[in-house]
Amino acid sequence: MTIKVGIIGGTGYTGVELLRLLHTHEGVEVIAISSRSEVGQLVGDFFPSLAGQTQLIFTKSDDKILDSCDIIFFATPHGVAMKTAGNFIHQGIKVIDLGPDFRLRDKNEYAQWYGLDNFQGDLLASSVYGLSEINRAQIKTANLIGNPGCFPTTVLLALKPLIEQKLIDLSTIIVDAKTGVSGAGRGANQAMLLCETSESVKAYGISGHRHYPEIKQELSSLAGGKPIGLTFIPHLVPMIRGMESTIYVDLLETDIEVQSIFEQAYKDEYFVNVLGAGVIPATRNVKSSNFCQIGVQHAVGGKLVVTCVIDNLVKGAAGQAIQNMNIMFGLDEKTGLSSMGLLP
Amino acid sequence: MTIKVGIIGGTGYTGVELLRLLHTHEGVEVIAISSRSEVGQLVGDFFPSLAGQTQLIFTKSDDKILDSCDIIFFATPHGVAMKTAGNFIHQGIKVIDLGPDFRLRDKNEYAQWYGLDNFQGDLLASSVYGLSEINRAQIKTANLIGNPGCFPTTVLLALKPLIEQKLIDLSTIIVDAKTGVSGAGRGANQAMLLCETSESVKAYGISGHRHYPEIKQELSSLAGGKPIGLTFIPHLVPMIRGMESTIYVDLLETDIEVQSIFEQAYKDEYFVNVLGAGVIPATRNVKSSNFCQIGVQHAVGGKLVVTCVIDNLVKGAAGQAIQNMNIMFGLDEKTGLSSMGLLP
Amino acid sequence: MTIKVGIIGGTGYTGVELLRLLHTHEGVEVIAISSRSEVGQLVGDFFPSLAGQTQLIFTKSDDKILDSCDIIFFATPHGVAMKTAGNFIHQGIKVIDLGPDFRLRDKNEYAQWYGLDNFQGDLLASSVYGLSEINRAQIKTANLIGNPGCFPTTVLLALKPLIEQKLIDLSTIIVDAKTGVSGAGRGANQAMLLCETSESVKAYGISGHRHYPEIKQELSSLAGGKPIGLTFIPHLVPMIRGMESTIYVDLLETDIEVQSIFEQAYKDEYFVNVLGAGVIPATRNVKSSNFCQIGVQHAVGGKLVVTCVIDNLVKGAAGQAIQNMNIMFGLDEKTGLSSMGLLP
Amino acid sequence: MTIKVGIIGGTGYTGVELLRLLHTHEGVEVIAISSRSEVGQLVGDFFPSLAGQTQLIFTKSDDKILDSCDIIFFATPHGVAMKTAGNFIHQGIKVIDLGPDFRLRDKNEYAQWYGLDNFQGDLLASSVYGLSEINRAQIKTANLIGNPGCFPTTVLLALKPLIEQKLIDLSTIIVDAKTGVSGAGRGANQAMLLCETSESVKAYGISGHRHYPEIKQELSSLAGGKPIGLTFIPHLVPMIRGMESTIYVDLLETDIEVQSIFEQAYKDEYFVNVLGAGVIPATRNVKSSNFCQIGVQHAVGGKLVVTCVIDNLVKGAAGQAIQNMNIMFGLDEKTGLSSMGLLP
Repeated sequence: MTIKVGIIGGTGYTGVELLRLLHTHEGVEVIAISSRSEVGQLVGDFFPSLAGQTQLIFTKSDDKILDSCDIIFFATPHGVAMKTAGNFIHQGIKVIDLGPDFRLRDKNEYAQWYGLDNFQGDLLASSVYGLSEINRAQIKTANLIGNPGCFPTTVLLALKPLIEQKLIDLSTIIVDAKTGVSGAGRGANQAMLLCETSESVKAYGISGHRHYPEIKQELSSLAGGKPIGLTFIPHLVPMIRGMESTIYVDLLETDIEVQSIFEQAYKDEYFVNVLGAGVIPATRNVKSSNFCQIGVQHAVGGKLVVTCVIDNLVKGAAGQAIQNMNIMFGLDEKTGLSSMGLLP
Repeated sequence: MTIKVGIIGGTGYTGVELLRLLHTHEGVEVIAISSRSEVGQLVGDFFPSLAGQTQLIFTKSDDKILDSCDIIFFATPHGVAMKTAGNFIHQGIKVIDLGPDFRLRDKNEYAQWYGLDNFQGDLLASSVYGLSEINRAQIKTANLIGNPGCFPTTVLLALKPLIEQKLIDLSTIIVDAKTGVSGAGRGANQAMLLCETSESVKAYGISGHRHYPEIKQELSSLAGGKPIGLTFIPHLVPMIRGMESTIYVDLLETDIEVQSIFEQAYKDEYFVNVLGAGVIPATRNVKSSNFCQIGVQHAVGGKLVVTCVIDNLVKGAAGQAIQNMNIMFGLDEKTGLSSMGLLP
Repeated sequence: MTIKVGIIGGTGYTGVELLRLLHTHEGVEVIAISSRSEVGQLVGDFFPSLAGQTQLIFTKSDDKILDSCDIIFFATPHGVAMKTAGNFIHQGIKVIDLGPDFRLRDKNEYAQWYGLDNFQGDLLASSVYGLSEINRAQIKTANLIGNPGCFPTTVLLALKPLIEQKLIDLSTIIVDAKTGVSGAGRGANQAMLLCETSESVKAYGISGHRHYPEIKQELSSLAGGKPIGLTFIPHLVPMIRGMESTIYVDLLETDIEVQSIFEQAYKDEYFVNVLGAGVIPATRNVKSSNFCQIGVQHAVGGKLVVTCVIDNLVKGAAGQAIQNMNIMFGLDEKTGLSSMGLLP
Repeated sequence: MTIKVGIIGGTGYTGVELLRLLHTHEGVEVIAISSRSEVGQLVGDFFPSLAGQTQLIFTKSDDKILDSCDIIFFATPHGVAMKTAGNFIHQGIKVIDLGPDFRLRDKNEYAQWYGLDNFQGDLLASSVYGLSEINRAQIKTANLIGNPGCFPTTVLLALKPLIEQKLIDLSTIIVDAKTGVSGAGRGANQAMLLCETSESVKAYGISGHRHYPEIKQELSSLAGGKPIGLTFIPHLVPMIRGMESTIYVDLLETDIEVQSIFEQAYKDEYFVNVLGAGVIPATRNVKSSNFCQIGVQHAVGGKLVVTCVIDNLVKGAAGQAIQNMNIMFGLDEKTGLSSMGLLP
């Protein structure tokens, strides 16, 4: 059986990354990809990396062919999936939203960060937050997945062992994150020109970033509902792909063997590599791959520092979505995702 | 049957690229990888992109395990394969040299560009120049392959249709080539520091580059032995991977339909994409993939301009080597190589 | 006496580069800068590199203050200066157009490449092509300067000695040029996003680039009006600033001492450095400076190869404009321009 | 009067940056520059950005000409200045050490981070920590300056107003810093190749970085000797120049008007620009310049976040050294340093 896949909103970087990864996934076929702006265009003419490699043509997002899919990936801005995912769910088609519509559980939080016009509580209530390593059991039987944001993925994987084992002070978690430019998308945007972003680093979103409530909600969920004191500051760095979070926490007791706790926690997780004692991950280690690498170390001054890297477009978006699809369809979780990072 | 692969000289960028590509190649297993400097080290500790993903340990290059391989890839500096490939060939083990030892046919040319101490004429005579799309038939039955240089690959694929059909003046071919920095290798080299190469472009090797005689020899071979008037100037550009050649030639007649000639010539070649009329390839289109993209256009002023891009570490090195291996072992040529380019 | 400077169209990269360079020019004061889109905004809020360093506010381009200037720089798209420069010239205000309006001499060429609606023959006839090292004498007394394009600057400086001394075959000049991304300007443009241009090289404009007729016209002018056979292909490379031209020519005689010819030709030119025999210039050598570096070498195969580098925003735009201003006002030509390149 | 300058250890990035900045400084002449490895070589042949622009030749570090200087800059690894600066001081020649020898006040700290063999307590005791904006008064009369490290410069300027006015909790200061690659110097170093550092971000020095004790010492000094609880983690980002520190602190009271406190604190400091409320500095804003930009903002979650950017080679090294020289010689502090940042 081949899983028939549809992609809604396929002209962005997440769209082409889904196409790249699904191309070598032996269990699926992409039968439709939609775009508001490129209807009728050959996908291989639009994405030069696919020139001559696919006969797919961009369709409208309400094209009938999408109804014959087994699963739909939404790679759309917020609001779109909330409005239209129900149409597919009701037909028995599974949906994974790579956008943010099914991440925040709280109506007011959703309203504050994304607006409320299209809020659909029932649909949201039926969805599962698709961080594969955390919610695998629920994902298995889910019909609707809110695929995690890239920053939350790094923070949640980095802190899961510490929080689940109640080892850290939850009131003072600081996350200093760095991302490549691809997270800003493919739209014409002066601020993302090479001449504006290359040879530069800057913080952004200090006064509020949409991944803040998502991180806080899911950390709290890991902590059994306890409140979290969180500071989260993302930074833009001059590279295409890659995301790193440096996380500062206080251990509740001083004699905790953190290295072995991390190794133990992730020993069965294919996509999470805990590096050896004292080894610090670089984003290049996981470029183009679905892997997450974690390093944990005591810093001078007493803080415990966890560093975590992913490729923001893979484990932070398209790769994790496919990992979730594999889980939902009972496939080997690694299918189509076992490529090593591109180095150099 | 699984093909047992050995890699000699595995600590460079070509070595890790072979490991990356062979990792998802379903028909092979890498059973040995050697290194002079890293004997005994876990490969996954040396290459952080492989952390936790392989149990391979670097061995000596004369380790017995190499004798149980079906094929050996040499990813070594010039001179090494010339000296030791014979040991494997004589045992019936196939060899692909990614270095330059089995490319130049002329003893004097070899001496001039690489030195003569270890020249072995018989071995050289038995080897095949492994540009898959040109010498596929001989590669099928070869035991020893001289894998082409990266620059020659771009030039040969770009000019093959024009030369074979005798359409251009062979006396004034100009190749202006641009390469990413990975071609310079992984050795500690001040000139290749980020601070020395980033934000800069420069020509090099004007007074002579080792790929010059190789390009000339193989162009002449395509032309049935006719002499070639060649100018070849490479340039270093600030990126990791990617290679572009802009080639200036004169058509012998003015009314030649070059676009259709190229499309026709490569219609059955999976890895060579002739872009549509007027479309110019960028190196990013093929990043991380084994594809070659070609554009052909008449320039203002009358020259015909052929532009050709590859990933210098894939179609320009490790990918082409694996393509040759597939041909040698009767596998589907695309096995392990069907990934699309990484975009962005 | 302080020269009062106005800048029309100051929100692009050329505008801010004029501001940067003029800031340390002891003989001038920028009293006005205009912008269609940013009228009323503090220049230091718009350009973060100038935060807190200037009280200038963007005005309209017809603000009266511009009439009290001694010189106006147009940093505008084509068409603007052709339409409005006359207003200033007639008041006795000197004008330097960094756009292309006063470069092409031929009405039909101008029409073909830029359109004809605003063509003003008399104004054009009174202008001087402002390549300082070539037309210094006429610049001295000019009221209206067409500041050269960046690509033409590299080609003209590279070939001036050879053409003036009638040493090369004029019928087969090939220019393979490479530029950083800043040449594409500061507008929101998907194709110039970091994610679209970084880690990539590509040719463009093969079927025609606006600098082609300009190069041809001025080469012909150097050759006393003889026709020129020119091929010119620019390439986009992943860096902010910098431009390199690799130029392939045939010497008319084989025993010409090109190195000394270049050294002699430029011995009195402060901004043109002929590098030592065999030394090849990199664009980083001149980053941020008004210098041009030239290397000349015989390539294997017989061509003479001249390589020439500039910073496209300095000697290729704002710096050369200021050099011309210095000449027009009788100042030391180096005033405000004597900074060395930024290395690394 | 022209100040005669000597540079010891001039082949690194700090050396060439001193040459670049001093070249346009009207009050000085560099009369000597030494190098262990390049004695006798023309400086303009060694640094291609200076080709043809200087007659300086590298001398030995004990060349007599250095004794005729008014001031010596040491741009040497740790240990060198400690050993030899005294020779110049005793002759009445002023010394600025851009290395770390005269930064740490505590003998044991110095021993722990740099070794003790060449420790000279008296010389150290007579030196002044050269952060111009903090120690201007002492610098005026100093003969020996320990020029601050780049990271400490960002942290000290960012926290000076808060600490001097006793507004923050000193026990939990977290500094997450990012630096371009030039800080790693110009030596051949595999880890700093473009292919190893480009397209990647990573933390380093978590278990200890030499700037840690320096930051702590000087923060404590600002706090009147009170102890400081500090966490400091630097990160390497893929760019040549630039340094950013994101600093997380807790205000002691909630109703403090931090924006105006910063504006007031730095209103008379030419080189420190406090950006407008809500504006976050990018390193590109100060590329190539001696400026420091600071942004201050309340983060969601309650922390106060101060972000501070400099060019690590200018305000973080050579520029600050020249600023100190200007102060020591009674010159206008801005002399030779008034260039705006290079943008783009």
